[in-house]
Amino acid sequence: MAGNGFGTIFRFTSWGESHGPAIGCVVEGVPPRIPLSEADIQPWLDKRRPGVSRFTTQRKESDRVQILSGVFEGQTTGAPIMLLIANEDARSKDYDAIKDQFRPGHADYTYWVKYGIRDYRGGGRASARETAARVAAGAIARKILGESVTIRGALVQIGPHAIDRARWDWQAIDANPFFCPDLQTAKKWEDFLDEVRKAGSSTGAVIEVNASGIPAGLGEPIYGKLDADLAKAVMSINAVKGVEIGAGMAVAALSGEQNADEMRMKDGKVVFLSNRAGGILGGISTGQDIVVRFAVKPTSSILKPLKSVDRFGKEIEVSTKGRHDPCVGIRAVPVGEAMTAVVLADHLLRHRAQCG
Amino acid sequence: MAGNGFGTIFRFTSWGESHGPAIGCVVEGVPPRIPLSEADIQPWLDKRRPGVSRFTTQRKESDRVQILSGVFEGQTTGAPIMLLIANEDARSKDYDAIKDQFRPGHADYTYWVKYGIRDYRGGGRASARETAARVAAGAIARKILGESVTIRGALVQIGPHAIDRARWDWQAIDANPFFCPDLQTAKKWEDFLDEVRKAGSSTGAVIEVNASGIPAGLGEPIYGKLDADLAKAVMSINAVKGVEIGAGMAVAALSGEQNADEMRMKDGKVVFLSNRAGGILGGISTGQDIVVRFAVKPTSSILKPLKSVDRFGKEIEVSTKGRHDPCVGIRAVPVGEAMTAVVLADHLLRHRAQCG
Amino acid sequence: MAGNGFGTIFRFTSWGESHGPAIGCVVEGVPPRIPLSEADIQPWLDKRRPGVSRFTTQRKESDRVQILSGVFEGQTTGAPIMLLIANEDARSKDYDAIKDQFRPGHADYTYWVKYGIRDYRGGGRASARETAARVAAGAIARKILGESVTIRGALVQIGPHAIDRARWDWQAIDANPFFCPDLQTAKKWEDFLDEVRKAGSSTGAVIEVNASGIPAGLGEPIYGKLDADLAKAVMSINAVKGVEIGAGMAVAALSGEQNADEMRMKDGKVVFLSNRAGGILGGISTGQDIVVRFAVKPTSSILKPLKSVDRFGKEIEVSTKGRHDPCVGIRAVPVGEAMTAVVLADHLLRHRAQCG
Amino acid sequence: MAGNGFGTIFRFTSWGESHGPAIGCVVEGVPPRIPLSEADIQPWLDKRRPGVSRFTTQRKESDRVQILSGVFEGQTTGAPIMLLIANEDARSKDYDAIKDQFRPGHADYTYWVKYGIRDYRGGGRASARETAARVAAGAIARKILGESVTIRGALVQIGPHAIDRARWDWQAIDANPFFCPDLQTAKKWEDFLDEVRKAGSSTGAVIEVNASGIPAGLGEPIYGKLDADLAKAVMSINAVKGVEIGAGMAVAALSGEQNADEMRMKDGKVVFLSNRAGGILGGISTGQDIVVRFAVKPTSSILKPLKSVDRFGKEIEVSTKGRHDPCVGIRAVPVGEAMTAVVLADHLLRHRAQCG
Repeated sequence: MAGNGFGTIFRFTSWGESHGPAIGCVVEGVPPRIPLSEADIQPWLDKRRPGVSRFTTQRKESDRVQILSGVFEGQTTGAPIMLLIANEDARSKDYDAIKDQFRPGHADYTYWVKYGIRDYRGGGRASARETAARVAAGAIARKILGESVTIRGALVQIGPHAIDRARWDWQAIDANPFFCPDLQTAKKWEDFLDEVRKAGSSTGAVIEVNASGIPAGLGEPIYGKLDADLAKAVMSINAVKGVEIGAGMAVAALSGEQNADEMRMKDGKVVFLSNRAGGILGGISTGQDIVVRFAVKPTSSILKPLKSVDRFGKEIEVSTKGRHDPCVGIRAVPVGEAMTAVVLADHLLRHRAQCG
Repeated sequence: MAGNGFGTIFRFTSWGESHGPAIGCVVEGVPPRIPLSEADIQPWLDKRRPGVSRFTTQRKESDRVQILSGVFEGQTTGAPIMLLIANEDARSKDYDAIKDQFRPGHADYTYWVKYGIRDYRGGGRASARETAARVAAGAIARKILGESVTIRGALVQIGPHAIDRARWDWQAIDANPFFCPDLQTAKKWEDFLDEVRKAGSSTGAVIEVNASGIPAGLGEPIYGKLDADLAKAVMSINAVKGVEIGAGMAVAALSGEQNADEMRMKDGKVVFLSNRAGGILGGISTGQDIVVRFAVKPTSSILKPLKSVDRFGKEIEVSTKGRHDPCVGIRAVPVGEAMTAVVLADHLLRHRAQCG
Repeated sequence: MAGNGFGTIFRFTSWGESHGPAIGCVVEGVPPRIPLSEADIQPWLDKRRPGVSRFTTQRKESDRVQILSGVFEGQTTGAPIMLLIANEDARSKDYDAIKDQFRPGHADYTYWVKYGIRDYRGGGRASARETAARVAAGAIARKILGESVTIRGALVQIGPHAIDRARWDWQAIDANPFFCPDLQTAKKWEDFLDEVRKAGSSTGAVIEVNASGIPAGLGEPIYGKLDADLAKAVMSINAVKGVEIGAGMAVAALSGEQNADEMRMKDGKVVFLSNRAGGILGGISTGQDIVVRFAVKPTSSILKPLKSVDRFGKEIEVSTKGRHDPCVGIRAVPVGEAMTAVVLADHLLRHRAQCG
Repeated sequence: MAGNGFGTIFRFTSWGESHGPAIGCVVEGVPPRIPLSEADIQPWLDKRRPGVSRFTTQRKESDRVQILSGVFEGQTTGAPIMLLIANEDARSKDYDAIKDQFRPGHADYTYWVKYGIRDYRGGGRASARETAARVAAGAIARKILGESVTIRGALVQIGPHAIDRARWDWQAIDANPFFCPDLQTAKKWEDFLDEVRKAGSSTGAVIEVNASGIPAGLGEPIYGKLDADLAKAVMSINAVKGVEIGAGMAVAALSGEQNADEMRMKDGKVVFLSNRAGGILGGISTGQDIVVRFAVKPTSSILKPLKSVDRFGKEIEVSTKGRHDPCVGIRAVPVGEAMTAVVLADHLLRHRAQCG
C-alpha cells in the first residue's frame, strides 16, 4: 500500500529522495543461505550510474551500496535486507529557481495537487534517482533466479531511429554507450544525440528486455498473470508510456495463423516454432524467452522554453537548466532488466508456494 | 495473492470456470449507502454479452447477475457484495476432442505444466467468460466514481484497418456492432470480418478507453502509480499483448518539446494545451482525460489447422471447431472500460485514505 | 483489505449476511490436484450446525455446502474455490422489533455509527452465521495440511466451571453436547446451562485448540509470527475477548526456570520436556503441539431487560426474544479449529515459498 | 509478506539485527503536511531505552533516531519515511559461547530449523532490540491520531504481584522505574526484582494499554476487526503469550447481564455504563477507551543452568551470561503503546478510505 513497495513474496520497499541524505530499499522474502555481498549488487548499479558518458546526466554519484541487515557471514538469513545508497552530488541550489514552478511533463504539478507539499530539489521522490533502488533489488532477484536464468536489456530505438534486428548482437551491448545490440545504429545515435543536445532538446526511446532460462509454469492467473505484473513493473518506471509483451501492439494487425506459435516435439521436449507470445500464454510462462518492450518519453527537462504555470496560478515560461539526460531511455535499460528480474523472482517463489 | 483478486481498498475477487455452474466475484471496500441493484449492473453485462451480432461468439448466455450480499433495502452496507452469474449454454461435449490437446496460442499448455490438471471445457478458468465478473465489478466501480465521471471505450483498429481519428464520434459507438467511433471504418470492418470468418481465421484489434471527469491527484507513486495499475489491469485481460497510456509507444520518436503538454490558466484553473501524457504525470492524474489503449491478439481458436502437440508428447494438428469470436477485441471494449473504472475507483478511495 | 478476507497465500474471502439468500467464501491458493468434494467439507459444517442440542440455537439450517468452482473431476485445479451455503430458516420478522434498537453487547450500535446503515435481520453481517464460511474454508485447509496433522478443539470452561485437566480424554469430545474432554464436568454443565436458560441469561466459555503433527519451522518473524496470526484469527471470531498461546496469561506469574521448556535428544530428535510455549518460539513452530486458548463472552442476546438507546437517541429497555445460543462458546469449538487450520495451512505454503 | 511489515494503509516495514550496524523501519501511508522531526520520535524511544534503571539490561544505547526521507522543511510529504537507529553497544563476543547452542525459551532452535542459518549475536533478528523500530513507527502513528487521542500503558503485574486497581494513578507512571500506576505495588516490585536478579532468574509481567479519544466507528469487520488487529499487533511483540481486550479471559465466567455494557444518553450523546467490551463491539470501536492487556513471559536468558541441546544434536546445559532484563515486561510498556497507536492510526485511515 501507499505505493512504495513492489512484489508479494519477494518484495522490496523503496524510500528516499533525490537530494535527501540517501536512498535505498528493504528487500523481503529472500530465501536463506544465498551467498550475497555488496559485490553482487554493485556491478548492476554501475551500469545505471550517471555520468559515465556524454550522453547521460553529468551528476557524479559513486552509487556505493551498503547492506545494513539480513546478511550474516556472507549469506542471506531470510531476514529483510536493507540496502542504502548515499546521495553525494546533490546540488539543491540548482533547483531554487523552479521551486514554485510546474515543469511541463514533470510530476511537479501532480505532486503539488495531491500532497499540497513538494520536495522540489532534483525532482524529490519523483526523481529517476529512485531507480537505483530498483536496480539494487533486481541484483538480489537475479541471485534468487540463479545462474540458469539470463536477463538482458537492449536499447532498440532512439527517437525515430530503430535498430536493424537482423544485426542483433548481444556482444555489442557493452561496446557502445547505449546498450545497443546493433553497432551500426549505435553510431547513428551518437550523431543524433549530439544534435539533440545541441538543440537543447531531448528524445524518447524503446527498450527491450529478454529473459531466458525461465521455466514454464510461472504466473498466477487471472490477476497475477506474469505479463500483467511485468506490465505494472515496467510502467512504474519513470517516463514509461507503453509496454509490450512479445509481438505487442503489432498483434492487432495479425491473423490467427500469423500470430500462432506452433508447437512441436524435439528431444522429448515441447518446442515452439516462433515466439510472438513473448514467452507467456494465459499469464503463465511457456519456457520460451520472456520478451518485454517499453517506450520511454523524451526527458521533460529541456532548455527550450515551454509554456507553464506556477503554484500561484501565474502563467510562466520554463526552461530547465540543471544536469539532465538528453535521453533517459539509455539508463532505463538496466532498470528494465531489474524490474523484469524482480517480477520473475517473485513468481518463482509464488509458484513454489502454491504448486510446490 | 494467488491471482484472483484485483485492487486494494476497492477490490474484487473473481471465481468460476467457463463450464462450471456459475461465475462471479466478491466486491469489497464499497462505501456504504450507495444505491445499488441488479439493474445498475445488468446494462454493462449486456454490452459484453455474447451472441448479439454475427461478429461475436454464438454462445447464448443471458448473463443475468444476482446480488447475494452486501446490499440492504436498495443500498450498499459496506459489507462484501457477492455477484453471481449462472452459466447457461455450456456445451462441454464440444471440447472432448481437445481435452488432451494443446491449442497454439491458448493457455492449454501452460495450465497443464503449472497445475498438472486442466479444466479443458470451454477454456476452463482461462476462458474470456471470466471477464463478465470484471464487467460486473466495473459497474459498481462506476457507482463509486459517480455521475461526474464518464468512462467510454472504443474499438480503434481491427486487423490492419485503423479508424480515421478525424471522424471520431462518440455517438457512433452504439450504432454499429463494433463500438467503433467512425462509422465509415465500421462499414469496412464488416466486410473484412466476414472474409476473416469465411477463411476460418481471426484477427487482432486495438481498443481505446477514455475516462473524463477524473480529478487531479489520484495515483500512488512509485509502485502504485495510476498508469502502472492501469497497465496491470488491462494486461490482465485475456489476449492483451500491449498497453499504452496517452501517446504510448509513439513517445519514443518524439522530441522533448513535441511531447510536452504545455500549461496555461483558464478561468482560474490550470489547463493543458495537449494530452500526450494521457492524463497522468508521475503516476498521478492531472485532471485531463485518462487515455488507455491496448492491443488484443487474434482469437487463437481458428479453423485453419495448426501444428501442435498433445499431453502425451505426440505431434498433432489442431483445428478448433467450437463457437468463437473471430475478433475477441470487440467484446474487450466493455471489459477495458470496466478495468479502467475499477482502477480509478480504487485510487479514489486510496487517495482519500492518505490525503483525506 | 476491507476486512473480508483472511490469509496470504492460502486465503479465503467471506461474504453474506444472516438473512440474505446465502453465505459463503472464495478460497484461494489451494494447491492443485488435491482430491476434494462437498463430502470433505460437510462433516465439519455439521459439527458447527445449529439446532442439534437444546444447548444451541433452535434455528434449523441444513448448512449444505456447494462447490461452485475450482474443482474438476474430483480434484482441485489451483483456481479459486467458491463455497456457497444457502440460508434456509431466516425469520426476519423476528427482528422487526429491534430494527431501530441497539442491543448492548452487540454490534448494532457500532455498525450504525460506522456505516450509517445496518442490516438488522439476524445480526446481518455481524451474525455468528458467518462462521460457517470459516468452517468450510477450514475443511479445505485441513486437506492441505494432510493426514499427519490433527487439529482438535475442546470446551474447557463454561461460566465459572472449568474442566479437570487430569481427566482430559479426547474420546469424550464427541460423547457430549459441549465438545467437553471431561465427561464429569460435562454433566455439571448440563445443569448449569439449564439454569442459565431458565433465568433468561447466558454464559461465557473457554475453548482450547490443539494442533499436532505440525513440523518445526512454520511462521514468519517478526509481524507474520505464527502466534500473531493465530491471535488475529481467533480474536476475529465473534464474541472472543482473549487469546492465549501455551501457558498464556499465566506466564506473568512464572519465573524463568519455571517457564523454560527444556530440551533433550531422543532417538536422534530434539524433544522438549514441557510445552509452556504452546509449540511456538520466536513466532516459529517448534514441532510440539500448537496450543491456542480463547475466551468467548456470554451471548449478548438475553431475555433479561437491559438499559439501552435506539437510533433516535431515545433511552429504552431491550429484551431479546429471537432464537439464541445460551452459550455461543459451544459452537465456537469447530470455528476455533477451523481458524487454526487456516493459519497453519497458509504458513505451510508461506514457508515453502521462502524456504523451499 | 515475509513478515516484516505491519499495517495496510499506515504501514511500517522493519529491518535490522541486534548486532548489525543499525536497525530501523520504513513508514508508509503517512498523510502529507504533518509537522515531524526527530524530536517528535525521540522521547518515545527514550522511554524504551535500555540501561536507565538497574531493572533493565545494562546495554548502553543512545537510540538516536535519524529521519532519512519523507520529510521536507519540517513536514511529511506523503513519501515513505525511513527511520534509522544505529547500534552502538553491540558486544558480539559475549555470544560466541552460544553460537551453536539452543537456549530454551529462545528463538535459537526455531530460526535454525526454519532458515538453516542464524545470526546468533545478541539474538540477531529475534532480539527485543527490534522493538525500537516499533516505538519509532508508533511515534508517527500518534502524530496521525492527533492531540485528541491519548495512548498510555502501564505495568499491572510482575510475577505473582498484581497492582491494586483501586489505587490506579496515571500520574504515578513516570514516578517509578516500572511504569506502574500504583506506587505501593511499585515499591514491592523493587524488592521482588532484586531477589529475582540475585537468584539469577527472571519473571513475567502483565501490561495494560489504554487509548482514549478514539472515535466510534474504527475497525473493519470481519477479519480486519479492530480487536483482531490489536491482538496480532500485541502478540507479535517478543515474549507475549496472551492478549486480552476489555474484560478478557474473565468474560468466560460472566453471565450475559454481568457482561453487558448498558447504554444511556448524556448531553445528547450515547454513553456506556461500563466498559467490559474494552471499547470494541463487533470489531468496531464504540467511542469508549480501548483497553488491551497482554502477558509477557519471563526473560528466557537466565543464569540458572537449563537442559538443552546444541546444533550438532549434543545434550548440553545452558546458562546465559550476557546483559539481560530480569523482566522484559517493563520495557514492553512503550512497545505495547506503540503497537496500539499503529493499529489505531491505520484504522483511522482505513475508515476514511471506505466511509469518507
